[in-house]
Amino acid sequence: MMQSARSRVLARSLGQSRSTLRPLQAQRQLQLRRAYAVETTSSTATPLATSSGVTPPPPPPSFTQSRWRKFLQFVGRATLITVVGGAGTFYYLAQKERNPGPQLPFDPEKKTVVVLGSGWGATSLLKTIDTADYNVVVISPKNYFLFTPLLPSVAVGTLAPRSIIQPTRYITRHKARTVSVIEAEATDVDPAAKTVTFTDDSEIKGTTSTTTIGYDYLVYAVGAEVQTFNIPGVQKHAVFMKELHDAERMQRAFMDCVETAAFPGQDTAEIERLLHMVVVGGGPTGVELSGELHDFLKDDLMAWYPELAGKVKITLVEALPSVLPMFSKQLIEYTESTFKESKIDILTKTMVKEVKDRSVVLQMPDKSIQEVPCGLVVWAAGNKGRNLTQNLMAKLPAEQTNRRGIAVDDHLRMKGAEDSVFAIGDCSATSYAPTAQVASQQGAYLARVLAQIARKDGMEKQLSHLEQAKQAGVFESEEQKQNIDKEIEGLKNRIAKVKPRPFSYSHQGTLAYIGSEKAIADLPFMNGNIASGGVATYLFWRSAYLSTLFSLRNRTLVATDWLKVKLFGRDVSRE
Amino acid sequence: MMQSARSRVLARSLGQSRSTLRPLQAQRQLQLRRAYAVETTSSTATPLATSSGVTPPPPPPSFTQSRWRKFLQFVGRATLITVVGGAGTFYYLAQKERNPGPQLPFDPEKKTVVVLGSGWGATSLLKTIDTADYNVVVISPKNYFLFTPLLPSVAVGTLAPRSIIQPTRYITRHKARTVSVIEAEATDVDPAAKTVTFTDDSEIKGTTSTTTIGYDYLVYAVGAEVQTFNIPGVQKHAVFMKELHDAERMQRAFMDCVETAAFPGQDTAEIERLLHMVVVGGGPTGVELSGELHDFLKDDLMAWYPELAGKVKITLVEALPSVLPMFSKQLIEYTESTFKESKIDILTKTMVKEVKDRSVVLQMPDKSIQEVPCGLVVWAAGNKGRNLTQNLMAKLPAEQTNRRGIAVDDHLRMKGAEDSVFAIGDCSATSYAPTAQVASQQGAYLARVLAQIARKDGMEKQLSHLEQAKQAGVFESEEQKQNIDKEIEGLKNRIAKVKPRPFSYSHQGTLAYIGSEKAIADLPFMNGNIASGGVATYLFWRSAYLSTLFSLRNRTLVATDWLKVKLFGRDVSRE
Repeated sequence: MMQSARSRVLARSLGQSRSTLRPLQAQRQLQLRRAYAVETTSSTATPLATSSGVTPPPPPPSFTQSRWRKFLQFVGRATLITVVGGAGTFYYLAQKERNPGPQLPFDPEKKTVVVLGSGWGATSLLKTIDTADYNVVVISPKNYFLFTPLLPSVAVGTLAPRSIIQPTRYITRHKARTVSVIEAEATDVDPAAKTVTFTDDSEIKGTTSTTTIGYDYLVYAVGAEVQTFNIPGVQKHAVFMKELHDAERMQRAFMDCVETAAFPGQDTAEIERLLHMVVVGGGPTGVELSGELHDFLKDDLMAWYPELAGKVKITLVEALPSVLPMFSKQLIEYTESTFKESKIDILTKTMVKEVKDRSVVLQMPDKSIQEVPCGLVVWAAGNKGRNLTQNLMAKLPAEQTNRRGIAVDDHLRMKGAEDSVFAIGDCSATSYAPTAQVASQQGAYLARVLAQIARKDGMEKQLSHLEQAKQAGVFESEEQKQNIDKEIEGLKNRIAKVKPRPFSYSHQGTLAYIGSEKAIADLPFMNGNIASGGVATYLFWRSAYLSTLFSLRNRTLVATDWLKVKLFGRDVSRE
Repeated sequence: MMQSARSRVLARSLGQSRSTLRPLQAQRQLQLRRAYAVETTSSTATPLATSSGVTPPPPPPSFTQSRWRKFLQFVGRATLITVVGGAGTFYYLAQKERNPGPQLPFDPEKKTVVVLGSGWGATSLLKTIDTADYNVVVISPKNYFLFTPLLPSVAVGTLAPRSIIQPTRYITRHKARTVSVIEAEATDVDPAAKTVTFTDDSEIKGTTSTTTIGYDYLVYAVGAEVQTFNIPGVQKHAVFMKELHDAERMQRAFMDCVETAAFPGQDTAEIERLLHMVVVGGGPTGVELSGELHDFLKDDLMAWYPELAGKVKITLVEALPSVLPMFSKQLIEYTESTFKESKIDILTKTMVKEVKDRSVVLQMPDKSIQEVPCGLVVWAAGNKGRNLTQNLMAKLPAEQTNRRGIAVDDHLRMKGAEDSVFAIGDCSATSYAPTAQVASQQGAYLARVLAQIARKDGMEKQLSHLEQAKQAGVFESEEQKQNIDKEIEGLKNRIAKVKPRPFSYSHQGTLAYIGSEKAIADLPFMNGNIASGGVATYLFWRSAYLSTLFSLRNRTLVATDWLKVKLFGRDVSRE
């Protein structure tokens, strides 16, 4: 029963756009409750026709029956109001989202902010930034935002791939001023000349496919790429879990294993190999993927491939002594026991030495080496910096020495290019974990900082005007001169006061789905921490995810996908 | 207002599984209408509390108000009943579909039917066949059925790819006896030895990946592949519209063109080239694709890429003198005028001579050669036989001489292998057009023929038992002997009567969507033909498609996709 309190805390503090439907629904429920109160009161005193102002008729013979009718009448009306009103509101909001209006053109007087990336950090910045202050250009090889925490759900077919992505233009087209969105890969950043070079690396290219543009401020939010630790075979044989096409590839490969196991005449050992799924990485991605895989087996494979259902095996491999190190001990134990029930093997303190075509080579806790036959290896084990980031850091060798990523000050300014480059998200090296939550808060913070800078710039411009006027020295009266001095003084004071506060991260908690309709949550509450696990937490997990998904559209898509799976199960086509 | 009559005609005669929800809904509506009749009658005589059997109260002061309340009450109840009842029925049916029960095992006494393919013909056969009579094995490189007429909708993102496919096991698992579904490519058919060889050609292979099995009856329903007429560049540069991955590739390529056109500094001519989409083939696929592309431009591109929206051009190229030759003249003209309004150019009597990376070479009606710059060429121009089919035909050179495909008799038996091979759908050469409708009717016909054969086999077995008994000649009485003679006579008569009728195709009409929420339909009615075009036909087109989609699941998925596009528009992510 702690659920709703926690839910409110999380929703408030996540600082994401919450469903605009919610307050409306709450209001409606209140009205209905009031209506119900009136109904029941009136039914005790004057069971019929009271509200139309008639003299009370004789009491009916059966009081219970009448109350029952009243109740049915009420439920009928409530349903009607909910259906019609809800549908109307929903339709209105959806249409508003999909029909952006005209926008202001680029203003050559304004400074240019170039944003590299379209992930959590960049998207959060774009949502918050005030385009009245700047000309904004976004450059990313993907023209959409990907809701990464739900990737494991896509990998087993619980969600459709397009339900968890949102075109970047769905945000930028609703801004006051035109934002230029360019689908291209940045190939070079020159912090001295303040320029970015980017190229169209997609299949279809035009006559122009490489360009360099200048920036006044650069928001560097390119994220990271998969860390393979140079372990042999990972790049070639393992499936990653980072981009949308990874999840789609995983689904295809998984169904391929199942169909190959179903091939007539396949021998038992080979069936066992094909149906052994190894997930490497005991972080939230690896754990959620294992949980989702288990759900798929239990809910769907059993129905459509009954002959195989008992033979699937899932193993989760983690080099550290425990899975989910970011969670509290009791939740780790809860996860472990749930996995045990689900027959998911957890191998901790175990390192992957090589991934082969049909097996994975493991170094066990006792340092012995085992080659384990398997059909599929999913690699969900860490990040490393992109080439672009390494090249950029190499240009500022004195300041950029952190091997984990771009070193920033506590205002997220890149060390060595503090005047013009900000770095946020997984590409930066901070004291925070590389999570969506951190990147998202950094993006929103940066948008506020940029607004302060714009305000300061405006005041400085005004100040220089006034100082020029003072220098010119043509005053109508002494009083006017004193006024100008006063104004200059005031402006200087106000400018001095504009000091952006350093970025501070406010942890909203950690959530993970662990399969079997159970989730775990570690949430800060007051000065302590709440750890919770189970089915209620699962429902909370769903609603938290729904409320952090950016748009009404994505919320609806994900919710209908969940409903579809509940109704029809997952699709077992190998597409 | 002809709509509903036509709808009924089509739905009845298509012979597809119709929504089981419909009769229920009709019944419910009837009940509601009755309920309403009672309400209105009672409200005239005794406005309140009549139905609960109370003495009539004094009439209320405002008659209109009371009637209004009654009406609202009725609407409320009707909504409640519809919502609750509809949801309940829906849930029940969905659960029934997704939870198949146990099945009988293979019976070595029964004959084996091997089905090659999982398209319209094969799927229709599988739906209809009685597995009590046979052991059934399905072999297809796809483990799902693809609803091909909706491919153009997937290509522009109106529908999700997985909404128009259905795993073959969703049908076979509901059969009385286990059906073996094998995801593999048939590589050889030996009509003399009655064997099929097939191989797992997917990425993940087991130790066993090629096998040969025998059959008593083979249903050859492998379809056709894309006909390129050996025109240079088609295979390399054009996008096809035949399989699901073609539609997904088309969507990706189309969005790639748009994003490349939006690249900063792209010159005007290049933008025009990139946004010129050429569709080759004036059949229903080409026409529907052009229409869907136009919808995408109008509904979505305008909103998210306003700077490009006016610059897109669609050209439909057809070698024959007119598009849609299967439709009546007035509908062709209607399509042409709709396309003119939609600014889709139709080039008839125009032949494609070559497809290049950035252009298409056309031979115009006056025989002149033009090279037209374009961003994308979609190839929707005809079928040709697969290699497997050509190899099979080469084994029966005397009988198989038709270059269009497998020659069959009027019982769909392959000439030269009449005793054991049936060919249906696009791989066969008949007098019918290679359409989904023909293949579907052939599949259902064949299932009925196989049932007749099984019945005949059963009777022949019985006959031979009786004749053996007669030969043995041990009778208790003369009467018994006469009885046996009688039985033998009767059985012989019954066996002689089992003569499958030849296949006859019953044309249910032709439908095509032409964009701008308009469709055209040519439907046989009584002895004549009804030609209809416009928005009403579009709604009819949708409901006809929904009712021919095989399962409740797919119907729901497609309907919610349509609703989603209505609410949120299409996704412009280049995934």
